Amino acid sequence: MSDGENTRYAAGVDFGGTSVKIALVNSTGKLLREKRIVTKDLPSRDAWMDHVAAAIRDIQGEHALSGVGVGVPGFVDHERGYIYDLPNVPGWQGVHLSEMMESRLNLRVEVDNDVNAMALGECTFGAGRTYQHAIFLTLGTGVGGGLLINNRLYRGAFSMAGEVGHISIDRNGVPSAQGKGGVEQYVGNARFVAYARSLLESGRTSILDDLCGGDRSQLSPKLIKEAAVKGDELALELLHFYADCLATAMASMTYMVQPQAFIIGGGVAEDAALLFSLIREHLNQRLHPQFSSRIEIKQAELGNEAGMIGCATLAWMD
Amino acid sequence: MSDGENTRYAAGVDFGGTSVKIALVNSTGKLLREKRIVTKDLPSRDAWMDHVAAAIRDIQGEHALSGVGVGVPGFVDHERGYIYDLPNVPGWQGVHLSEMMESRLNLRVEVDNDVNAMALGECTFGAGRTYQHAIFLTLGTGVGGGLLINNRLYRGAFSMAGEVGHISIDRNGVPSAQGKGGVEQYVGNARFVAYARSLLESGRTSILDDLCGGDRSQLSPKLIKEAAVKGDELALELLHFYADCLATAMASMTYMVQPQAFIIGGGVAEDAALLFSLIREHLNQRLHPQFSSRIEIKQAELGNEAGMIGCATLAWMD
Repeated sequence: MSDGENTRYAAGVDFGGTSVKIALVNSTGKLLREKRIVTKDLPSRDAWMDHVAAAIRDIQGEHALSGVGVGVPGFVDHERGYIYDLPNVPGWQGVHLSEMMESRLNLRVEVDNDVNAMALGECTFGAGRTYQHAIFLTLGTGVGGGLLINNRLYRGAFSMAGEVGHISIDRNGVPSAQGKGGVEQYVGNARFVAYARSLLESGRTSILDDLCGGDRSQLSPKLIKEAAVKGDELALELLHFYADCLATAMASMTYMVQPQAFIIGGGVAEDAALLFSLIREHLNQRLHPQFSSRIEIKQAELGNEAGMIGCATLAWMD
Repeated sequence: MSDGENTRYAAGVDFGGTSVKIALVNSTGKLLREKRIVTKDLPSRDAWMDHVAAAIRDIQGEHALSGVGVGVPGFVDHERGYIYDLPNVPGWQGVHLSEMMESRLNLRVEVDNDVNAMALGECTFGAGRTYQHAIFLTLGTGVGGGLLINNRLYRGAFSMAGEVGHISIDRNGVPSAQGKGGVEQYVGNARFVAYARSLLESGRTSILDDLCGGDRSQLSPKLIKEAAVKGDELALELLHFYADCLATAMASMTYMVQPQAFIIGGGVAEDAALLFSLIREHLNQRLHPQFSSRIEIKQAELGNEAGMIGCATLAWMD
């Protein structure tokens, strides 16, 4: 099926610690072509620019592009297209990325935080497309977030809004560089798995030991979800803990900005019907009915493509 | 000094549990005339309408009014000018206030939550007037809030955003109808004073007993602030506790929406230089420097007039 006459095209560049994914996306949010480059094969910023620019020209084919959107894993000044720092990718402090790419491509280049780009993708073409006000959450290594306010991504005063993983759920809780008791100190993958391991090591019995073949270093949120679905008591308790920690932060977000919905994506939110029902249960306990009755919880729809589609969407925003 | 030719006028009606304050305000935010009616002298909704309408005509004098804004202590649908409920004023469930008043006054009538109105006043004419993105907090019986986003009051999906007193600072904390560990369960006047009393009753010594003349039922945040300024150890500890609880919620708000500033008003924020410096100290400990270095904390400027001025301001909004 060919695209309509008024269809526009943009390139989305999803810059991750492992790979850079480059996609051609059309203005109905469909991903048409995709290329991947392994991040460690791009040792310098110049190599990065050269290979990414070539990949964009390659996937572009016969289509004129409206522009390019780049999502990066770190702190960004979206207005200036400037990267302050990418904590997990060395050599990217203080880079004026949009200017460097625009001069190579002769196209408008927008830069944003990767989670903001995903939020924009989900809220434009995915599970959030019917809402004016929504909060996008991504559950994985950490807890990321993006805010849709009045149909637009809200970036806050200095492009750093939506850092919801640092919302405190315990004034005297786990310390980090971002304060104390941030929700991702409890439900971030490594923390959550470490907590599960500590319960197993305290002598609790569970089918988790079978599922990981006796090697507790193989424990993961995925295995814990599987064990909980099978009725394992310890795994269920862990999933309740996860849901309640997250619901505590979600309740605080709701009292503050009252979105219409939460859109939840990321690895932990896949194959997670039980987890979603526990999140709803705990959120209902933590909100006044005036609020809980008015809020929806939805699973993200764009999966692994959310980043690339969201990045391309950046190119069409004002 | 007479007002300029282009000056507009509006009436602001600040509906409190104790009194209804009605003011004539001009479009530079100046309060020109004011009337008060004791709330218990208005036993029915009709009596309320009659007396408030008469007071508006009275203070109006020779000025044509752009409209009337009413701030009420409870849940409101601002779009429809509809009061869901006023928890502390009996007889006001399900009242279509704007319609009822418009038919009496033949003027446009806007209705909002009282804290939203104060936030609007402070952010238009007071300490928040230079910011595009700010959070207004009011410290007293509870903790109220209002969000300024992109130069406009943000009301959320169903007019109930800004209920920041229910932001949880402890997942396993003090329960209430709004969840667990809401910050106002620790720093709301009655809770905070009860905590102070419990420390005194555990045998701690303090000049607080002198300041309240030996009658601990007379303890108040004001006395605790006074004692702390005099160097009283227990009072200082209490003020640190207050500041840290509030800073925990403020850090969560900052990570979420990253405002340029917090504007803090309400009784507890008056004569509170020491408290403000402790709030800054604890907030700095709870935020990454990328955030703490970019946020201001300001005292509200409109004092007792914030409500009336803010209500009148409602009448000039789109």
